Amino acid sequence: MSQHTVSSFDEELKEVAGRVSEMGGLAEMMLNDSVQALVRMDKELARRVIAQDKRVDALQFEIEEQAILIIARRQPVASDLRDVISAMRISNDLERVGDLAKNVAKRVIAIEGTFDSKKFALGVEHMTELAQSQLKDVLDAYAGRDGVAAASVRDRDDEVDALYTSIFRELLTYMMEDPRQISVCAHLLFCAKNIERIGDHATNIAENVMYMSTGVLPTDERQKVDETGIETDAAS
Amino acid sequence: MSQHTVSSFDEELKEVAGRVSEMGGLAEMMLNDSVQALVRMDKELARRVIAQDKRVDALQFEIEEQAILIIARRQPVASDLRDVISAMRISNDLERVGDLAKNVAKRVIAIEGTFDSKKFALGVEHMTELAQSQLKDVLDAYAGRDGVAAASVRDRDDEVDALYTSIFRELLTYMMEDPRQISVCAHLLFCAKNIERIGDHATNIAENVMYMSTGVLPTDERQKVDETGIETDAAS
Repeated sequence: MSQHTVSSFDEELKEVAGRVSEMGGLAEMMLNDSVQALVRMDKELARRVIAQDKRVDALQFEIEEQAILIIARRQPVASDLRDVISAMRISNDLERVGDLAKNVAKRVIAIEGTFDSKKFALGVEHMTELAQSQLKDVLDAYAGRDGVAAASVRDRDDEVDALYTSIFRELLTYMMEDPRQISVCAHLLFCAKNIERIGDHATNIAENVMYMSTGVLPTDERQKVDETGIETDAAS
Repeated sequence: MSQHTVSSFDEELKEVAGRVSEMGGLAEMMLNDSVQALVRMDKELARRVIAQDKRVDALQFEIEEQAILIIARRQPVASDLRDVISAMRISNDLERVGDLAKNVAKRVIAIEGTFDSKKFALGVEHMTELAQSQLKDVLDAYAGRDGVAAASVRDRDDEVDALYTSIFRELLTYMMEDPRQISVCAHLLFCAKNIERIGDHATNIAENVMYMSTGVLPTDERQKVDETGIETDAAS
């Protein structure tokens, strides 16, 4: 970050970055709790996750408002402008992460009765661990303005995608074996898809951290978008 | 819009709005073509939809860049600032619409063989008509800065949600009746979900058009998020 004659400008940038980190922490917690609620079929925990989403939405609103004020008042250029734009974009991705976790929580409430969670939810749980570590690492990379660490998070998205593909097939098999499980497995399919998309948002965040440190948004499309996706489950 | 002494400012605002409308037209077309590709299992058309998404992404990038330049250079206030912010937000929603349509197109390519499209895809096709008319009407409301028309689009989101819920149940029934159709129906479930989410984005756009004309973002949460969603399929 360049030196500014007006020190309160730096403080404003730090305040925005602090809110992004707070939002990231909340989104991480929502992801963790929503999948814990799913594995344990804990509807009370699911309701708490749903309630938390309002705070995430409010933070996004505040970050956007603050960022626009900074752009209008300070007319930042170069790396300062990139910081502000990245904060807006990253908060947008984090808002989506919160939404997707909330949707998992809603499905916990929608699923009637219980299911063989060990067997069914194991894959989703494992996938969540990967997505969580992606999210954690990219938030650390954001806090440390570490483009190299961000690039390594971006490279790891294939793992989540590959696991999603295998869970997709596994759940279809369970459906075929026992049609009474079709409804539960359909909900789990959507949960798995949500976690996979959380991985995509972690990747978007990684690209924005790279943009912050280099000034260039990575443009080489990741392979999965055109290859694995089409062959298997058409990841978005 | 207020009168400006610098006429090129108005031109800049018009240019941004023109790009948003162009993006909207493209997103509409992608939605229509992706579902036509699904109904007819036309993989060639699906590939064309996928290719179009790059243009939508590029437009979003251009709109964001232009909007930030305007905020920094012109320091707009009141309704002008709302215009610029809304353009950014609406382009963000339209980019998601393009993504969701692209995902439907990818599924057309992923589905192997054929299926009884008349029976299976009828619901998705009908839902698409509703989502399309929402999208068309909200883009007209945007072009005409018509907050009243936007509010009426917002009120119509329940129709798409209700239809999605009925399609969700219908597809589960088909799966139970004939397990060989489980894989195809799982793809159709995701397609239906994508269309339902396109309806949500049309609603977001409607809220931004309302914000443009009134300065207030509607905050009363729509009923479906907390009621129907939980009872039936947990719409995100």
